[in-house]
Amino acid sequence: LVLVRTRNPLNIGAVARAMSNFGFSCLRVVQPYEPAFREARSAVGAASLLQRARQHTSVADAVADCSLVVGTTAIGERRLQQPIRDLGPATKLIRKRLSSHRVAVLFGSEKTGLSNEELSYCHWLLHIPTRKQHLSMNLGQAVAIVLYALSASNAPKVLERAPNPATADDLERLTTALRAAATASGFKKAQSVESSEQRLRRLVRRLSLRSEDAGVLLGIMRRILWKLNTQSGD
Amino acid sequence: LVLVRTRNPLNIGAVARAMSNFGFSCLRVVQPYEPAFREARSAVGAASLLQRARQHTSVADAVADCSLVVGTTAIGERRLQQPIRDLGPATKLIRKRLSSHRVAVLFGSEKTGLSNEELSYCHWLLHIPTRKQHLSMNLGQAVAIVLYALSASNAPKVLERAPNPATADDLERLTTALRAAATASGFKKAQSVESSEQRLRRLVRRLSLRSEDAGVLLGIMRRILWKLNTQSGD
Repeated sequence: LVLVRTRNPLNIGAVARAMSNFGFSCLRVVQPYEPAFREARSAVGAASLLQRARQHTSVADAVADCSLVVGTTAIGERRLQQPIRDLGPATKLIRKRLSSHRVAVLFGSEKTGLSNEELSYCHWLLHIPTRKQHLSMNLGQAVAIVLYALSASNAPKVLERAPNPATADDLERLTTALRAAATASGFKKAQSVESSEQRLRRLVRRLSLRSEDAGVLLGIMRRILWKLNTQSGD
Repeated sequence: LVLVRTRNPLNIGAVARAMSNFGFSCLRVVQPYEPAFREARSAVGAASLLQRARQHTSVADAVADCSLVVGTTAIGERRLQQPIRDLGPATKLIRKRLSSHRVAVLFGSEKTGLSNEELSYCHWLLHIPTRKQHLSMNLGQAVAIVLYALSASNAPKVLERAPNPATADDLERLTTALRAAATASGFKKAQSVESSEQRLRRLVRRLSLRSEDAGVLLGIMRRILWKLNTQSGD
C-alpha cells in the first residue's frame, strides 16, 4: 500500500489500523506531510507497521519492485488515460498477481487525489463505485474497503456452527401443546377444529425451529396448559 | 443504520459520509454521547442525513419498524448467543430483505460494541472477517465496508415475493406476551429474570416469523394470559 502526499495524521493512523485488521504489513509513503507522518507514528498504539513504513521521495521509487501498480481514483472531472476497473473485478486481478508478485496500490492526497503524473506509473486504475452525487470518499474508509475486498475471500471460513434443527416429532409435540393451550384458554373456539389444527401445524413448521428452542417452547406451553387445567378444575 | 452509544464526533461524521457515498439515507442514533452528536451535526459540510437523523432512547424503539435487525460484532472474548455470519453471506440476506422491507444494521459504541441486552434485539450478527491478532475495527471504516458490500452489486433483484416478515415491534410484543404467560404459569420462576428475558427475546428472533403468524401467536398468548390472570383471581 502506497500513500502519496497524505496530509492528515488521523488518516495515516486509520490506514495503518485497517492494514493490521486485514493482515497487510507493507506500507510505503511518498512525500508525506512531515508533521502528520511524525504525529501518526508517535500516536499511542501506532501499529508497528507504521514504524517500519518506508518513506520515498517519488512514486517511481516507491513502486520500483512491484510488478503491478494500481492507482485509485474517484473519477472526477479529469479525463483519465488509463483503463478503470471497479473494485470487484479489480480485486480478482490484484489477488491473482499477489499470489506470486508484489503489487502496489496507490492512494493520493485527501484533497487532490493522485496527479496525472503519479497516475502515469500505474498499469490501470481502481474505482470504488459510489453515488454520482457524492463520489469522493474519506481516505481511511476507501483504504479499508479496498483491503477488505482484497482479503475477504482469501479464506472463506465457516463461523456458524449450524444448530440442531427440531425434528418433526418436536414440532408435532409443540403443535399439540400450543393447540391444547389455545383451546383451554378459549381461543377461537368458534373456528372449525380441523382447519385451525392444520393452520397451527403449518405455522409451527414455518418457524424454522432449533431443537433446543422447540424444547423451551414446549416446556412453557405444557406448564401453561397444566396451569390452565388445574385452575379450571378448582 | 443504527448507531448505538457512539462517542466520537469524527466517527459519526465518517459514518454519515460513507452513507452518502453509497446512497443510504436513514440514520438513527440511540443514546449518543450528546456533545459528540451535537458537534458532528454542526460540522461544516455535515450531510443533511445527519440533520435528519432520528434520536432514540432505546434499541427497541429505534428498530421497531424493521423486519430484520442485524447486529455487528468483532467477536471478542464474549460468548455470543446468536448466529454469526461473515459479511459476504450476510450481504446476500440483507439485500434480499431490503428489496421489500426495512432492515436495521446496528453498530455499538467504539469502546464496548453492542451489549448483550442490545444484541438480544437482533435476528443475527454480522462479522467483518479480520485478523485474529487484530479483530477490532475503527467504527467509520467498519461502516464503510458494510455499506460498500451492501451497495456494491445492488443489481441482483429478487424475483420471489416473500411473505411479509414480522417487524421488530411485532416480535417484541410477542416476546412480552410469551414471557408474561410463562411467568403467570409459574414457568422457571427461579431463573434470573434478566437472563431469561434476553434468552426468550433471542429465541423469538430465531423463529423467522411472518407478520401474520406473529399475529396469530400473539393472539393465542394474550388469550392464554387473560385466562391465566382471570382464573387466578377467581
